[in-house]
Amino acid sequence: MTEQEGIRKRERAQSVTRAEEIQAEEQKARKNQHDKPCHKPRDSLFSWNSGFDNFTGFVNWAFLLLSIGGLRLLLENFIKYGIRIDPIQWIKLLVDDQPNSEHPSIAMILYSVVPVVLCLLIEKGLAVEIISTVPGMFVHIINLLVVILLPMIVIHFKEGFNLIGASCVCTIYSILFLKLWSYIQVNMWCRTARQNAKSGMRRQSLSHSDLKSDDSKDLKVSLVLYPDNLNLKDLYYFIFAPTLCYELNFPKTVRIRKRFLLKRIFEVLVCGQIIMVIMQQYMVPSIKNSLIPFSNMDYTRTAERLLKLAIPNHLAWLIGFYLMFHSWLNLVGEVLHFADRSFYNDWWNANNIDMFWRNWNLPVHRWALRHLYFPMIEMGYGRQTGSIAVFFISAFFHEYMVSVPLKTYKIWAFMGMMGQIPLSYISKFIEKQYGPRFGNIIFWASIILGQPLVIMMYFHDYIVVHYGEALLEDYSHI
Amino acid sequence: MTEQEGIRKRERAQSVTRAEEIQAEEQKARKNQHDKPCHKPRDSLFSWNSGFDNFTGFVNWAFLLLSIGGLRLLLENFIKYGIRIDPIQWIKLLVDDQPNSEHPSIAMILYSVVPVVLCLLIEKGLAVEIISTVPGMFVHIINLLVVILLPMIVIHFKEGFNLIGASCVCTIYSILFLKLWSYIQVNMWCRTARQNAKSGMRRQSLSHSDLKSDDSKDLKVSLVLYPDNLNLKDLYYFIFAPTLCYELNFPKTVRIRKRFLLKRIFEVLVCGQIIMVIMQQYMVPSIKNSLIPFSNMDYTRTAERLLKLAIPNHLAWLIGFYLMFHSWLNLVGEVLHFADRSFYNDWWNANNIDMFWRNWNLPVHRWALRHLYFPMIEMGYGRQTGSIAVFFISAFFHEYMVSVPLKTYKIWAFMGMMGQIPLSYISKFIEKQYGPRFGNIIFWASIILGQPLVIMMYFHDYIVVHYGEALLEDYSHI
Repeated sequence: MTEQEGIRKRERAQSVTRAEEIQAEEQKARKNQHDKPCHKPRDSLFSWNSGFDNFTGFVNWAFLLLSIGGLRLLLENFIKYGIRIDPIQWIKLLVDDQPNSEHPSIAMILYSVVPVVLCLLIEKGLAVEIISTVPGMFVHIINLLVVILLPMIVIHFKEGFNLIGASCVCTIYSILFLKLWSYIQVNMWCRTARQNAKSGMRRQSLSHSDLKSDDSKDLKVSLVLYPDNLNLKDLYYFIFAPTLCYELNFPKTVRIRKRFLLKRIFEVLVCGQIIMVIMQQYMVPSIKNSLIPFSNMDYTRTAERLLKLAIPNHLAWLIGFYLMFHSWLNLVGEVLHFADRSFYNDWWNANNIDMFWRNWNLPVHRWALRHLYFPMIEMGYGRQTGSIAVFFISAFFHEYMVSVPLKTYKIWAFMGMMGQIPLSYISKFIEKQYGPRFGNIIFWASIILGQPLVIMMYFHDYIVVHYGEALLEDYSHI
Repeated sequence: MTEQEGIRKRERAQSVTRAEEIQAEEQKARKNQHDKPCHKPRDSLFSWNSGFDNFTGFVNWAFLLLSIGGLRLLLENFIKYGIRIDPIQWIKLLVDDQPNSEHPSIAMILYSVVPVVLCLLIEKGLAVEIISTVPGMFVHIINLLVVILLPMIVIHFKEGFNLIGASCVCTIYSILFLKLWSYIQVNMWCRTARQNAKSGMRRQSLSHSDLKSDDSKDLKVSLVLYPDNLNLKDLYYFIFAPTLCYELNFPKTVRIRKRFLLKRIFEVLVCGQIIMVIMQQYMVPSIKNSLIPFSNMDYTRTAERLLKLAIPNHLAWLIGFYLMFHSWLNLVGEVLHFADRSFYNDWWNANNIDMFWRNWNLPVHRWALRHLYFPMIEMGYGRQTGSIAVFFISAFFHEYMVSVPLKTYKIWAFMGMMGQIPLSYISKFIEKQYGPRFGNIIFWASIILGQPLVIMMYFHDYIVVHYGEALLEDYSHI
């Protein structure tokens, strides 16, 4: 059998060489003629047979076409609307614009010292065991609820807030809520460990005194140990540090790099300006124009408006991402000698929705894992339940930071966030079925198209709630 | 010295390990605490120090954003102009649209048989030495001049041509000119070789009888030899074959692949329809709207119009390229058993203008090298002169195929082509200075923006020449 196969193979090889010889001889014979032949059998590059696959030039082509399209939209916009950039309007918005205003936003931000100090005092009490655990935790929870409910109530009932001021207050109080939660939980872990060590329940764990005498002498490492961390300086370092996860000894840098710092300051100023221009010049006219078709359920025009809004909105979001997560957090980190600059991962390569949510906002992602997901797993809940809880709290804060400043209690942002759960399954299915490239495209599409849809819904409802249906009709003449 | 260096190295290595040890110990000490530390010193991905460079997701992003932008323009266009696609109009244009027309385009195409047959008769005469070389060549040149001048004269003076018909006539006569030139030159080479062999001037070259007796018997290869090729069937095979370079024995395929053929036919039909839609729906309104700003030298609006025109024009060109150079030429090649399907190279990866011109249109490029550049080099001209001659003839045919059907004898296309020479130097300089990626971007930019500029210039002049300044003012109300 094998011999026969060998013979067959040799025969086949010979016939191939024979065919090649004939072709080569034919080629040679043609070359010997004087018509200078220049053709030979070959396939076009776009044919599958050619095996050609170098289309890198089309990547440059796509980016160039994108820039040209963008430049044209810029020109069209300036021709149509003129220059709408008005820095004075921004300053007016930043400072409360009502005359005789009490500047409630600034008052609210200053008031945030109260829950912080209260939290520290309770912790001190718990540490020296003046307050016992149950009432201490009860007061903590009340304090946290106040942190999250105060802006809602004050912004809703007090006059004189503007949109920007109210947004800042909501953002700061949200961050404060997450930070204090982390602070309380970490101190609780330390306290539990100390109690366990004292009562000798766990013999292997290092006791407080062990750590102090042992490590700090031998290694010239001066670690802050549990109750020593309970002071205002340490707490305020954490409040300003670019992280939501408290720990007793943050890794520190040795020096502030001046050039690095200057670059980040420059980026914050420039990117901020660009976002303002995009909003004033592109997004505001697009959203205004979307009102009527959206209200009348005119699908073609709504889709056109949605796509028109999608691109500047997406650009503003991308620049905003860079501004917040690279420039701003690195700036703060540099000033505070904070060494961990991992604020984002490569979410742009995400092959499904999950990968995006795990990678784009690492401070929140780490907080959610450390202070919600893993504690829930330890408490005996399943992974599914933990994931849904994380999504739920994330959805709540998205809704909170949009609805409260707008005073429009619709659940579009919340729905958008909760919609990520089925979308995540769909995108994972597509990734498996059609490969990672398609997963990546689905992720980008959901980001690019999902946001402007939510924005249009809010704007529509904001106009209806605050100015009534009449204004909607006014807009139809514009 | 080397010992000291060795010691220093070891010391440095030790200090590095020592520092690492301290860090590791610190990490360990921090881990031993109960605050579950989750931070460690690291850089953000966008910082140079991180060494991160995987941004492949942004390639998908660019293509997606491009599609979304395209879709929006599509919707905007339909909302603004309605559906302008009118297949009947196209059929009207293809058949001459004047009533009682003599269909001069069809007559002109049929007339093209005359110069072809005349060319063959002269070649026959030269082969059997009825006609001597000098008068034979003189008649050939006259014949070629008639081929190129006839459409110019007929289209200019005869009424009843429409744009599409006239364009077809010009294209066919241009191709015919290049093919007959190649046919005459190749036959001349063969004749010269035969004469040299006969007069025994070159002893090493194979004589006619040598070739016949030797190769054809031994190798079962039946090559057509010089005067046997001079018949109408061979000439008309060449006229229809997808090449401009004549040779006596074209490489042939064994069979017609039916699926391949059906795919190409399908592509020709679909791509043709898409190009028509792009032209009717996008380009025509854009060009019309560009007239007034262009005439008034309103730079902002002209630039906006130029960029608006650039993208559909570029898409139409890209699809047109695929239609012509892949679908159509492969279709013709498949039907004629023509084996050499190398009609284009990977021009999309071109790093400078030269590379593009060498790779995008291989039939013309091969013709230019084989029948103009190398003969000129052999005649003793320099490489520079040869290149300029090639560019000059290319520029002439570009101008010819635009100006003659439009009856607008402006030199924009000619200038555009000749402008490629300085542009080629600039793009090579940029390639050297900033790397191949920038060269590629410059090449794409010149393609995308150069064409619509020339189109707008022609359209402006066409309106001015044929309808006068009055119509220009009429357009201002649209």
